[in-house]
Amino acid sequence: MQIEVVTIGDELLLGFTVDTNGAYLARELAPYGVTVARRTSVGDGADEIAAGVGEALERTGAVITTGGLGPTSDDLTKPSIARLFGREMYVDVGVVESLHRRWKSLGRTGEIPRSNFQQALVPEGAVILANAHGTAPGIWLEDERGRWVAMLPGVPREMRGMFADALLPRIRRLMTGAPTVVRSLTIRTTGIAESALSDRVQAIDGWDLEGLSLAYLPGWEGVDLRLTARGLGSDEADVRLARVADVLRPVAGDHVYGAGNDDLAAVVLAALRAQGQRIAVGESCTGGMLGSRLTAIPGSSDVMLGGVIAYHNDVKMAQLGVGADTLVTHGAVSEETAREMARGARAALGASVGVGITGIAGPDGGTPEKPVGTVCIAADVGGTVRSLRAIMIGDRHEVRLRSTQAALSLVRRLLAAAAAGETPA
Amino acid sequence: MQIEVVTIGDELLLGFTVDTNGAYLARELAPYGVTVARRTSVGDGADEIAAGVGEALERTGAVITTGGLGPTSDDLTKPSIARLFGREMYVDVGVVESLHRRWKSLGRTGEIPRSNFQQALVPEGAVILANAHGTAPGIWLEDERGRWVAMLPGVPREMRGMFADALLPRIRRLMTGAPTVVRSLTIRTTGIAESALSDRVQAIDGWDLEGLSLAYLPGWEGVDLRLTARGLGSDEADVRLARVADVLRPVAGDHVYGAGNDDLAAVVLAALRAQGQRIAVGESCTGGMLGSRLTAIPGSSDVMLGGVIAYHNDVKMAQLGVGADTLVTHGAVSEETAREMARGARAALGASVGVGITGIAGPDGGTPEKPVGTVCIAADVGGTVRSLRAIMIGDRHEVRLRSTQAALSLVRRLLAAAAAGETPA
Repeated sequence: MQIEVVTIGDELLLGFTVDTNGAYLARELAPYGVTVARRTSVGDGADEIAAGVGEALERTGAVITTGGLGPTSDDLTKPSIARLFGREMYVDVGVVESLHRRWKSLGRTGEIPRSNFQQALVPEGAVILANAHGTAPGIWLEDERGRWVAMLPGVPREMRGMFADALLPRIRRLMTGAPTVVRSLTIRTTGIAESALSDRVQAIDGWDLEGLSLAYLPGWEGVDLRLTARGLGSDEADVRLARVADVLRPVAGDHVYGAGNDDLAAVVLAALRAQGQRIAVGESCTGGMLGSRLTAIPGSSDVMLGGVIAYHNDVKMAQLGVGADTLVTHGAVSEETAREMARGARAALGASVGVGITGIAGPDGGTPEKPVGTVCIAADVGGTVRSLRAIMIGDRHEVRLRSTQAALSLVRRLLAAAAAGETPA
Repeated sequence: MQIEVVTIGDELLLGFTVDTNGAYLARELAPYGVTVARRTSVGDGADEIAAGVGEALERTGAVITTGGLGPTSDDLTKPSIARLFGREMYVDVGVVESLHRRWKSLGRTGEIPRSNFQQALVPEGAVILANAHGTAPGIWLEDERGRWVAMLPGVPREMRGMFADALLPRIRRLMTGAPTVVRSLTIRTTGIAESALSDRVQAIDGWDLEGLSLAYLPGWEGVDLRLTARGLGSDEADVRLARVADVLRPVAGDHVYGAGNDDLAAVVLAALRAQGQRIAVGESCTGGMLGSRLTAIPGSSDVMLGGVIAYHNDVKMAQLGVGADTLVTHGAVSEETAREMARGARAALGASVGVGITGIAGPDGGTPEKPVGTVCIAADVGGTVRSLRAIMIGDRHEVRLRSTQAALSLVRRLLAAAAAGETPA
């Protein structure tokens, strides 16, 4: 099945909002053989909505919209699409009742804000999609030829809940016969450039993609290699994806840290857990970002103890025991300081693994010897300390993100060496 | 001037990549009177690219594309659009030379990865847009009727640099006469619901938007009120925006923390700086996210000392001085613990302001008394300690984000009270 996604809102066209809904829908639908053929963003105007949705409906006969269902006057999705289908609007009593129930369940007293009742206006013949996470109901509208539009709210949390609860089951019921599957397999690498990876891949003897496509996806986390199978049965797709991935992985070697959506933070937490280790972080330029990444993973509390955000040099000395002479001799941004931060974090929090990050995230503070982007990273795994110095590309945010990734990568490699009984280089 | 943006890549349709480029371009172009009429995402296939770009060209005659210019074989933007314009491809010597220069400037030795040279293939009649941040050159292609397509890379950092350096000046030169300006003004609020704000606004006596549009934009930071003026001269637009904003602001009252893109973290840093205060954080469920937000702001080092990520209770006790009896009697997630964390962070780091956050971010760990989303937050401003307990909505990530925002909001209000010589409630 091919569908189109139309995301609605002036905010999307003005660029004030980044559209994450379209990506979410595509990702969730792909495993069921539903392909997003095109995505369009249009403004809040009734004519723009009707044009964008109408053209998409012509192409595929199956459209999901997000946005424009809220309680305010700029929310015109329902009436615009109702007109496209030649339907009138009416007040749905069930929606009014569910508004009252939600109001009560949140423990709120007083009157429901009047604006909310606009949400009870729905097109004739609509199927209401319940909203467990908000007040705006979704709408399913279908014509006599079986062409349909599903209207979901724009707030991501509400959209996701409604999609999973109400829309996905409905779409799956529409699908008959064996689906034409789109299946992907991703190999995640870090610490190697896209072009270098590409050259390595092209140098493979007798290289054959077996009809799969291969995409190189660079980002701050590293470069992902994504293999995609289209138009195959799911068993055949899985077999080919696995076979080609088995050829690719050794080519990327030690740079491979995971597959699919694996987060390197989760990979490191799992390795720590497997070895009975506990980690503490000492962060300067990343200011808590590494800690935030580690604690973003549910269940991290058994191996992540915490850390010290040592942004000021006084904190590096007092909380992490970095020597005043180290700071004077080598500077706050030096491998020596990073090593003392790693050791200090480990000691102060009673962990077995410590990490230290110190650098110049920019935009100011660079020198000819230590330009903006210079970051020193150290890890102390049970007393074995290793450090590195690198120049991270990108703006302040990206330098910080890349620094957390490089730190996690260093810990991963030290843990792997420890598990293999090797002395790390 | 009206343009369309076409973002290219299977990854966008598969949902593996969120399109931030489209939003960036719209945001940057709006101040110059360039409106994005529609945004489309199409796959990597030559036919899909030609269809998406061709239709956009029909509608507006002015199209910016991003993506598909890289060194790998799935990058078909240039040949597809060349065919649309009836142009052949040739190898551009200038691009080859700049590849060599960049290679040298990065201090790299050895051969340039062969794949990079695919980037030197460009359509006849193309204007090369230099890429200061990467290897893929951009392309400007224009036909005899003045219709144009500008092709930018998909990697956001490269796209942004090329847009600012090479494309924006070119587009501005095309614009003649007084531009039809689209101007926006945003009032940022936090701690009040969209529907409650909307009711307050609609209750204003003699309320008149003066032809502006008003959008309510809810998110984890709060609800933004965005006023937009279209089709006015820039002076008249500014006058009306300011006048209507002056009516709106008192309606949202103490919930207003800024304007435009103001980040509450930057607002708080500025308030701290103005009062000569220095801040330290104590974070449990947010695990460093508040520290990361504060240190994300360039120049934060004069007021942000650092903090303690006290994820484990041992760290709360040892590093922040939280009492064992407090943890036993009230629990780790309690206002009492949050207050001791705030006081402890302040004392341990020698700051004048301390913040404590402890909560249940989920998905597990909730109880009937303390459901998932329960967060306790405290701030100690020069010995005056205030705390709150709230239930944050959303998933783990959103609960954590909302917690940092609520903590910053509490600090902001305490600093404002201190500045006004008031005792905070």
